[in-house]
Amino acid sequence: MQRTSSGTACEQGELALLREIRSRAARAPGGGLRLGIGDDCALLAPRPGEELAVTTDLSIAGRHFRLDWHPPESAGHRALVRGLSDLAAMGARPVAALLSLGLPRELTAPEGRRRAGTRSWIQRFLDGLLALAAAHKTPLAGGDLSESPIPVADIVLIGAVPRGKALLRCGARPGHLLYVTGTLGGAAAALARLAELASAQPARLIPPRIPRELEAQLAPHLYPQPRINQGLWLQRHSLASAALDLSDGLSTDLARLCQESGVAAEVDAALLPIHPAATLAQALNGGEDYELLFTAPPSARLPRKIAGVSITRIGRILPLRPNRPAVTLITPQGREPLNPQGWQHFS
Amino acid sequence: MQRTSSGTACEQGELALLREIRSRAARAPGGGLRLGIGDDCALLAPRPGEELAVTTDLSIAGRHFRLDWHPPESAGHRALVRGLSDLAAMGARPVAALLSLGLPRELTAPEGRRRAGTRSWIQRFLDGLLALAAAHKTPLAGGDLSESPIPVADIVLIGAVPRGKALLRCGARPGHLLYVTGTLGGAAAALARLAELASAQPARLIPPRIPRELEAQLAPHLYPQPRINQGLWLQRHSLASAALDLSDGLSTDLARLCQESGVAAEVDAALLPIHPAATLAQALNGGEDYELLFTAPPSARLPRKIAGVSITRIGRILPLRPNRPAVTLITPQGREPLNPQGWQHFS
Repeated sequence: MQRTSSGTACEQGELALLREIRSRAARAPGGGLRLGIGDDCALLAPRPGEELAVTTDLSIAGRHFRLDWHPPESAGHRALVRGLSDLAAMGARPVAALLSLGLPRELTAPEGRRRAGTRSWIQRFLDGLLALAAAHKTPLAGGDLSESPIPVADIVLIGAVPRGKALLRCGARPGHLLYVTGTLGGAAAALARLAELASAQPARLIPPRIPRELEAQLAPHLYPQPRINQGLWLQRHSLASAALDLSDGLSTDLARLCQESGVAAEVDAALLPIHPAATLAQALNGGEDYELLFTAPPSARLPRKIAGVSITRIGRILPLRPNRPAVTLITPQGREPLNPQGWQHFS
Repeated sequence: MQRTSSGTACEQGELALLREIRSRAARAPGGGLRLGIGDDCALLAPRPGEELAVTTDLSIAGRHFRLDWHPPESAGHRALVRGLSDLAAMGARPVAALLSLGLPRELTAPEGRRRAGTRSWIQRFLDGLLALAAAHKTPLAGGDLSESPIPVADIVLIGAVPRGKALLRCGARPGHLLYVTGTLGGAAAALARLAELASAQPARLIPPRIPRELEAQLAPHLYPQPRINQGLWLQRHSLASAALDLSDGLSTDLARLCQESGVAAEVDAALLPIHPAATLAQALNGGEDYELLFTAPPSARLPRKIAGVSITRIGRILPLRPNRPAVTLITPQGREPLNPQGWQHFS
């Protein structure tokens, strides 16, 4: 770690990038981080009684983001949100992030014929990543850097949670009620709009900055928010029996929760908090909303909002029975199986 | 984490691979791992008084290994050894590893026209990775999986070390002596031999298995050993004032140690434990030996071997002075600057 892919004179650009990352990541250790960038490993010290949650998420150009669609700031934000959302789903507070970056050399050079004042793709990627990290008090504590024919970013998130209190996927029981935070389908709707806009423009290696009037419309896809505060609230109040984050879509992620808990579930379409711009199909199968899906016993009293984000009951947990679908959707037309149709990346 | 790149019917191969990884990684949690593959995060609980060391290392095909040179088992071993060696350099005991894998679909299919009994590239990659993990009691606790146009593997290692006892890069002081474990240059010499052999054979996507008589000769490059036990010994005996692992070559890594400690150093060429197959240049600049480079005060009594591996004094630490090179090499011809000429990957 803390290493370029090493080498000779031609590696000056990478060394400069490493120095820039180190200087931008610099901050007083604290909150569990004892040693950041500069040694073979980062050092983390959880508080007494805490355990650490660790997750890693790979973002690959052409698969998780597109160089010609996504502003670099969005690619950086989206790489980090995947890991932060995993911590949220465990009810963990972020302690530190590490970033492994593989980059084609041209993305480390300033754009626009190297005009003074322009920033390189990777600088703008870091702008987006570090802004979201700062919003969640998450220091960048290390990583790795290498040349690569295509951009790849693997983000590692480490969080802390009181021992035995992490929100797991396996605790849902028949009779428990099913909830989501926020709204569903907004990211898929915004992605569809982004695809429309991109196809109407000449192809460019790096897209122009998004006009301000479109930013809000595209934000659910370009800048989704991890539900860290909501996960922490659920963990501290010991109200959720199971939880995960909606990264691949409700139909896919609910099937995972059911499988890990050994239960079935039904979702009431009329109860779904569908994003105003989204269709029912996008709310059911669209990925990357990064809302939390969780279950709680019927006795649990849940507020309408947690830290400003709405909480909606959308269904309930059933016993798993042979010859019955694991997940059922209730619509005005009756009951139908809800099969995993999770969102496919840009393949 | 614990997620395929999601999707539709065509993702069956990835789901099968995920199941295989989960089943092969399965083992009773213990030694600090409380929850492994299957939830949003892995959970780790250090023992009282311990802190955690975290490192991440990216391996990219064509850069850190070559599909047409390296047996898949070697690519898996080499991906993991980079992280284990970082833990060794901190004096940490391994607790868990996470693996982010991006793979072209064809590498998940069995070789040789899908004959029964043949194994896919990724299965053989995992064979190599998991064998080394088992040798160091390191459970695979999670990761991420995605389709990718080129194979990329990011390995995350988490280790534990008593609080305040980690071996850092910054503690070398003038007068301290400089040591290495094992021998130097063996990996570079074996790589040169591998390149010769590969160029004499018809190109294949995946190389044939290495003949047994060549295995020992190529092992320093294909299967380098992390010095976990030596790092633990140094940490427990509080003898080393600074340490790092030789991943990019002595000339490059010693310059890093000097920079982090704010010192200079001299290396005596006559003292270097050069691998029998290697040249002086390979011992100085060849990367990937994964030996430990460390310093200790002159009062420290170091054994000739630690856990079966030789310990050799190769030089000493000097004060940093303006107009003097940070690292000097002493040869029979006199003193010369030893500039970082670290090993460049397969670019």
